[in-house]
Amino acid sequence: MNISAFFRLFQPKDKVFYSLFEQVADNLAAMSKDLVDGLKSEEAITEGFYKKMEDYEHANDKLTHNIYIELGKNFITPFDREDIHQLTSSLDDIADFIYASTKYILLYKSPVMPCYSSFASIINDSVLELKKAIYAMRDLKKPKEVFAHCVEINRMENMADDLFSKEISALFESNKEVLDIIKIKSILEYLEDVTDKCEKSANIIESILVKYS
Amino acid sequence: MNISAFFRLFQPKDKVFYSLFEQVADNLAAMSKDLVDGLKSEEAITEGFYKKMEDYEHANDKLTHNIYIELGKNFITPFDREDIHQLTSSLDDIADFIYASTKYILLYKSPVMPCYSSFASIINDSVLELKKAIYAMRDLKKPKEVFAHCVEINRMENMADDLFSKEISALFESNKEVLDIIKIKSILEYLEDVTDKCEKSANIIESILVKYS
Amino acid sequence: MNISAFFRLFQPKDKVFYSLFEQVADNLAAMSKDLVDGLKSEEAITEGFYKKMEDYEHANDKLTHNIYIELGKNFITPFDREDIHQLTSSLDDIADFIYASTKYILLYKSPVMPCYSSFASIINDSVLELKKAIYAMRDLKKPKEVFAHCVEINRMENMADDLFSKEISALFESNKEVLDIIKIKSILEYLEDVTDKCEKSANIIESILVKYS
Repeated sequence: MNISAFFRLFQPKDKVFYSLFEQVADNLAAMSKDLVDGLKSEEAITEGFYKKMEDYEHANDKLTHNIYIELGKNFITPFDREDIHQLTSSLDDIADFIYASTKYILLYKSPVMPCYSSFASIINDSVLELKKAIYAMRDLKKPKEVFAHCVEINRMENMADDLFSKEISALFESNKEVLDIIKIKSILEYLEDVTDKCEKSANIIESILVKYS
Repeated sequence: MNISAFFRLFQPKDKVFYSLFEQVADNLAAMSKDLVDGLKSEEAITEGFYKKMEDYEHANDKLTHNIYIELGKNFITPFDREDIHQLTSSLDDIADFIYASTKYILLYKSPVMPCYSSFASIINDSVLELKKAIYAMRDLKKPKEVFAHCVEINRMENMADDLFSKEISALFESNKEVLDIIKIKSILEYLEDVTDKCEKSANIIESILVKYS
Repeated sequence: MNISAFFRLFQPKDKVFYSLFEQVADNLAAMSKDLVDGLKSEEAITEGFYKKMEDYEHANDKLTHNIYIELGKNFITPFDREDIHQLTSSLDDIADFIYASTKYILLYKSPVMPCYSSFASIINDSVLELKKAIYAMRDLKKPKEVFAHCVEINRMENMADDLFSKEISALFESNKEVLDIIKIKSILEYLEDVTDKCEKSANIIESILVKYS
């Protein structure tokens, strides 16, 4: 067996991780697309919409679990085992926080504020950049494209940050009931946290590239 | 000197870290057991109970400090020095957040809510699983048992998460004063954070196993 | 070419990182000094002071970006590439949270509370210790001085923690409007977070030393 045949032998196992990360990215992209749709109208959130978000969150948990199982089975991984572990856990946080946002909108019986929908758009844009970054990771030796997506994700996080401070101060100036202000503030924090988790994932991806490129 | 004698020479130093982590685990287990007892009755928290929690927190700080000192002295460690550092710091967070929970119950003069005691039970269960995981780490080549405890810790965190959302929405529906709602919400966040820190410790342990097993 | 000439060849590139971290430390030190000055009087925060804080934050972003660019260009780094990445990002958090504190004081039209100034002093002390730690990092083989500064940073964080709990309980006992209490609590959290980020930076520095010393 020559060297190249020897390496081809390991390729399929190696590729398992890329494929799993891409499935996570696809799931997050579908989840954030549905978040945009579900928060479009200002009517109360539906149980059906909430259920859909819960399903995406469970789907993400399953993929996370599969990645950990593969980590246990495979000796050869495309990059450090602990980097795979960290990236998996930070992508899982994105699903958790999108889910938490919708859960609390439902639980708090909060009317859907127009700004929830603005956050949903930024989240969706950020997740789509993250998806592109993850698909581009297969070629660790050409990191430029991945870095460009990470820069975009950072820009989205800044936008979300600005939106958050604008909306929070408007909220305090509004004549809403104090308890409603507290609830809306808490939901805005969950929504803003999603973009923080996207940024964290982007940071982990960048630090992987920095090691291997 | 033969090879096996050579390695026995290093064993005692190596074992120092396991022993220190076990002392941390024992301290956290005693602390969370006393948390359960201290939050059992719905009467106000006593200064004596608060003091006990502070002592546990200080004891944990001392153990943390000892681990760092050993790290400075020992060239040979059972696993990567930065992993020891991370695990130590995340276990210290558990003590800090249990302590903070009781500190704010006392400072806010908050009546002990029945749900505080439910959180204390979950925290205690989670810490006991963590203790078992830590005791099982001595044998890094047999990771199955450790992983099983980590799965349990994740399950506890999910339970705490569900309890938190249930209690928070009940709180908003209650007729309590707004300031009391803010205080109780903040205490519930500290209590829920403890299980997050247990989960984080479990994640670090898992990622250590993933590297060495 | 002898060995020492060979190593001198790499030194300039190697030193680039120390120099960039020192520039970050200088920027943070100037920022926290101006924070002390800007929060000295109990009058409302000025737009000019806010603008200055924004400029420091932008300056920090630029330095952060430069460090990432150097990471991309340099094969030889004084310590692990991912450690440089982590330290850079945690120092950036310090600038972000100092900036956020002043942004929300302005946005919330919050009167400057005397305790803001006490926090500013602790932040400034903590940042100065961090600056000393960073300047002392050039000599990784003599870690004692760096560790001493890290111990101080941890002490500052404890002080900020105590100040926070004292001020928060006083705030709840005050007769302020509930919305004002919520705003001030949120600003105090941002200020306290700054010392947490200093502690996190110190922890990363310690874990780098633990690896290399």
